[in-house]
Amino acid sequence: MTRFAFQIHAVDGAARTGEIAMQRGTIRTPAFMPVGTAATVKGLRPAEVRGLGADIILGNTYHLMLRPGAERVARLGGLHHFMGWDRPILTDSGGYQVMSLASLTKRSEDGVAFASHLDGSRHLLTPERSIEIQRLLGSDIVMAFDELIALPAPREAMEAAMQRSMRWAARSRTAFDSAPEHASRAALFGIQQGGLDERLRAESAAALQNIGFDGYAIGGLAVGEGQPAMFGVLDYATAQLPVTAPRYLMGVGKPDDIVGAVVRGVDMFDCVLPTRSGRNAQAFTHDGPLNLRNARHAEDQAPLDHDCPCPVCTGPAAVSRAYLHHLVKSKEMLGAMLMTEHNIGFYQHLLASLRAAITDHRLASFADTFLTRYKN
Amino acid sequence: MTRFAFQIHAVDGAARTGEIAMQRGTIRTPAFMPVGTAATVKGLRPAEVRGLGADIILGNTYHLMLRPGAERVARLGGLHHFMGWDRPILTDSGGYQVMSLASLTKRSEDGVAFASHLDGSRHLLTPERSIEIQRLLGSDIVMAFDELIALPAPREAMEAAMQRSMRWAARSRTAFDSAPEHASRAALFGIQQGGLDERLRAESAAALQNIGFDGYAIGGLAVGEGQPAMFGVLDYATAQLPVTAPRYLMGVGKPDDIVGAVVRGVDMFDCVLPTRSGRNAQAFTHDGPLNLRNARHAEDQAPLDHDCPCPVCTGPAAVSRAYLHHLVKSKEMLGAMLMTEHNIGFYQHLLASLRAAITDHRLASFADTFLTRYKN
Repeated sequence: MTRFAFQIHAVDGAARTGEIAMQRGTIRTPAFMPVGTAATVKGLRPAEVRGLGADIILGNTYHLMLRPGAERVARLGGLHHFMGWDRPILTDSGGYQVMSLASLTKRSEDGVAFASHLDGSRHLLTPERSIEIQRLLGSDIVMAFDELIALPAPREAMEAAMQRSMRWAARSRTAFDSAPEHASRAALFGIQQGGLDERLRAESAAALQNIGFDGYAIGGLAVGEGQPAMFGVLDYATAQLPVTAPRYLMGVGKPDDIVGAVVRGVDMFDCVLPTRSGRNAQAFTHDGPLNLRNARHAEDQAPLDHDCPCPVCTGPAAVSRAYLHHLVKSKEMLGAMLMTEHNIGFYQHLLASLRAAITDHRLASFADTFLTRYKN
Repeated sequence: MTRFAFQIHAVDGAARTGEIAMQRGTIRTPAFMPVGTAATVKGLRPAEVRGLGADIILGNTYHLMLRPGAERVARLGGLHHFMGWDRPILTDSGGYQVMSLASLTKRSEDGVAFASHLDGSRHLLTPERSIEIQRLLGSDIVMAFDELIALPAPREAMEAAMQRSMRWAARSRTAFDSAPEHASRAALFGIQQGGLDERLRAESAAALQNIGFDGYAIGGLAVGEGQPAMFGVLDYATAQLPVTAPRYLMGVGKPDDIVGAVVRGVDMFDCVLPTRSGRNAQAFTHDGPLNLRNARHAEDQAPLDHDCPCPVCTGPAAVSRAYLHHLVKSKEMLGAMLMTEHNIGFYQHLLASLRAAITDHRLASFADTFLTRYKN
């Protein structure tokens, strides 16, 4: 059975559409992966996530290692069985959350020691332990463990972190390959670093390809640099990575970020934005984001988006903006559930539209139309 | 088209099973009505509520008149359209919540003036206004507006409140009948009062029958008097009400309360317990309630209840107690969603089992088996 096979069906400029075949299912690319931080895509059942069009979801190593614990998840049959999602799961390496959520972090060449944000307990994440945790979870796409630094940072610090990340990428590769049973059915992605520096990005891309990975992530972006700077990096970063492997832009993003990144050759995305916004009364629409708390929606019989095919917008279960406004104002759980469902549905529909536009070689006009209408 | 027709299919002792035919659908009795306080059964979509077996839900006049407002709901097409539930809805009269939630209440023969618990705004509920609100909502089963007093109360106060409630019941009837368009497709229920006093209960029942209602509720119970006292009242109260009309025990209750009340001839129930408990980590099972926060569930692969047919317990979407424990501990929305789904499913399954037991004339042995196993 195929472990990991990326096939490109059509190319349009720098953009591509295709699919990744894996044992637990096929991932259509460009793909958006809903974030299932703590073994749940917040507010949605697995069948709902799938019904909205997701081929793969993301799980967070940092959160799961702390609660319920990787060894416990393994004893309970792995993350897929535990949460009832039988399709591919990509797990991050934990590096990003350690830097953003944990306290008392202490870095060394070995890895990062830290205190849990939940109970202060001490933990150590190294490339080897990160890969082990992802294996215990039963991850399908495992991410190499990398070092992240707070930006802005001096070029020397950035270069040092990138080079350490490349050494850790090699250790991640060795650790992944040392467990052949898991390695025979899962994939390992490396992560390009180098901040906004083209030469560092090139060096990082070369180092990763020297090690060899199934896919390549573009890390260290969407951390406050702004869309123009991010697109500036993507303008050269995707071309620095192998054309034959999927490119994954981590933690991105807003709908217009995704359109611009697909145009620049990115194949995979993840972001908490649609789920987090859904819990915060914000709906994504083709006209831009909409705050359902606003009183102007109180008697609006329209759906969130006439052009959205999700069950919240059309069909027998569709509801009005007026109803969502009421739920949100009343702090009703159903408000967050329906808004999240719509947002994930909107994102999946956007990715499906991007795939179709690439297939038909009309991505430029699709992107132009989308971005003209979409107001942030 | 039938406005309201109650047919009894089988009788077993004092218990009966049958159905109420109404324009928006048929209600199988004995029936449990999930509570949809603010135009949502908290944590569940309408299709999920229906899928679990509910024929009818309850809406709260007090909550809906304050937010989003009865006139607004009417402008938006009525409560059914607003929330996407096309089957029967019973609305309460608002009397109970005014006494339990509002502040600065001031009673008179006219009605009850009060300040909203949301924003302190002043409102007046009278029998006429309560019926008007229920009509604006588009209620299928309208409840008469009655006066409730805090217990324990002197017999004279209890009697005075009961007699005022009977005068208000007559005003409710007149108000209901004064809007023939709504009255031609909805039903009106009266509410028996009288506390724990058999003579007052009899007097109230006679007064209500003198006015004439489609169904009769037993009010003023489940307010702290305890199960033996409540069953003591039911032992005579159901027989004081017409055998040909549905009897509705308001605000009840725990699974064992419901079994005991069905045995005593009650046909309809509503209670926030399954939904509220679901948000509070408590699951109902055939062995009694289960607190999913308890660490003993952390690695328990069993479902909540092997004998429950709900989607959380069996089938492709079933999950383990271990997973629910994790969700509850992590304060994940999905925990409350799944626990609520199970609890409503458990209640609907219990009512279906009671209906089947009455049909087969084996209610006594069913109740005995259920109550022996069920530990509060």
